[in-house]
Amino acid sequence: MKLYSDPFAPNPRRVLWLMAEKGIDDIQVVRTETMKAEHRAPAYLAKAGLPLVPALELDDGTVISESIAICRYLESLHPEPNLFGRDPLETAVIEMWTRRAELLFATPLMLAVRNSLPALATLGPQSPERAASEGRIIETYLPLFERRLGDSPFLGADRLTMADIVAAASVGFGRLIRFEFPGDCPNLRRWWDVMRERPGAKSGR
Amino acid sequence: MKLYSDPFAPNPRRVLWLMAEKGIDDIQVVRTETMKAEHRAPAYLAKAGLPLVPALELDDGTVISESIAICRYLESLHPEPNLFGRDPLETAVIEMWTRRAELLFATPLMLAVRNSLPALATLGPQSPERAASEGRIIETYLPLFERRLGDSPFLGADRLTMADIVAAASVGFGRLIRFEFPGDCPNLRRWWDVMRERPGAKSGR
Repeated sequence: MKLYSDPFAPNPRRVLWLMAEKGIDDIQVVRTETMKAEHRAPAYLAKAGLPLVPALELDDGTVISESIAICRYLESLHPEPNLFGRDPLETAVIEMWTRRAELLFATPLMLAVRNSLPALATLGPQSPERAASEGRIIETYLPLFERRLGDSPFLGADRLTMADIVAAASVGFGRLIRFEFPGDCPNLRRWWDVMRERPGAKSGR
Repeated sequence: MKLYSDPFAPNPRRVLWLMAEKGIDDIQVVRTETMKAEHRAPAYLAKAGLPLVPALELDDGTVISESIAICRYLESLHPEPNLFGRDPLETAVIEMWTRRAELLFATPLMLAVRNSLPALATLGPQSPERAASEGRIIETYLPLFERRLGDSPFLGADRLTMADIVAAASVGFGRLIRFEFPGDCPNLRRWWDVMRERPGAKSGR
């Protein structure tokens, strides 16, 4: 299998992080840099269907895009450690927190960077208003994650799951606009201190 | 179990649609209208954690929010007809198309309505620029869905799946700003003619 990945983009990092947690080392990582428009090359578009990374190419030629779909598929091949849930209810709670992590933190943070970092202007138009509105989403919902991490060591369950990976995989990208968890979020800061030491935190660069 | 749902909001419709496809009739639907701020009532917030519908309350008091997490949980209780995939690869392809339907069509359409329909100004600030930018996302990616529906009768597989429900459940809301599939998208129009006759299309009003 081949994973088309950009070492600087946040979504492929979710897959690389999962691979590191599961010790998956038999997937060839093919560097596909968005800043060099490699995700818009005709050969890539013919495979992936969309100018987006990551994409996973199976040995039979099937290509799966969308980081979470790729991650769930890899979990089916490498079940341990379990990151998506061991029974229907646990799976539902983990998916709820994975989507909250994505929609209320990771994606807004990515869009805030995308719309404000001068170096990314080459990728398309930027909007300071949009960057600010995404920043307000993060600010609004950080207390939700802070409360959750007061009740649970990790976001989705009492162990690391996909929800933590989705949130943590975007923090490095957020650093480009100096994002950090604020001082009044001690639980998030403790969680991040744990996450930044995981093997996945260092993967794929 | 109880489903907190707003008959006018697009995301709860995904759950109602799935319930109709599976013939699930033992869940009490509790009307929770966002236009009346019922999703911000303290009792609801204490349950759901966030001012968002839908939310599913289990008999043991556990509350799951996020429509797709709720739908996958309900599939575990009512496996037929299968909407999420029968094996890991089919599940991955369906999840890829479900996310494309959500991120490249349903959510942009919802945000276009939210940011432009005068009646929704009571829900919070609106931005014509944001509505236009969401409209451009829909326009950019409709050809992707049109091509897919040239190769396959449904979005996720050769039968109706969650991907179709996510896309179709938002069309009615889009009608509020007169959205319809354009004439140069015959496959999408054929697909919508099939979807609008499904039991789920009439559910929950």
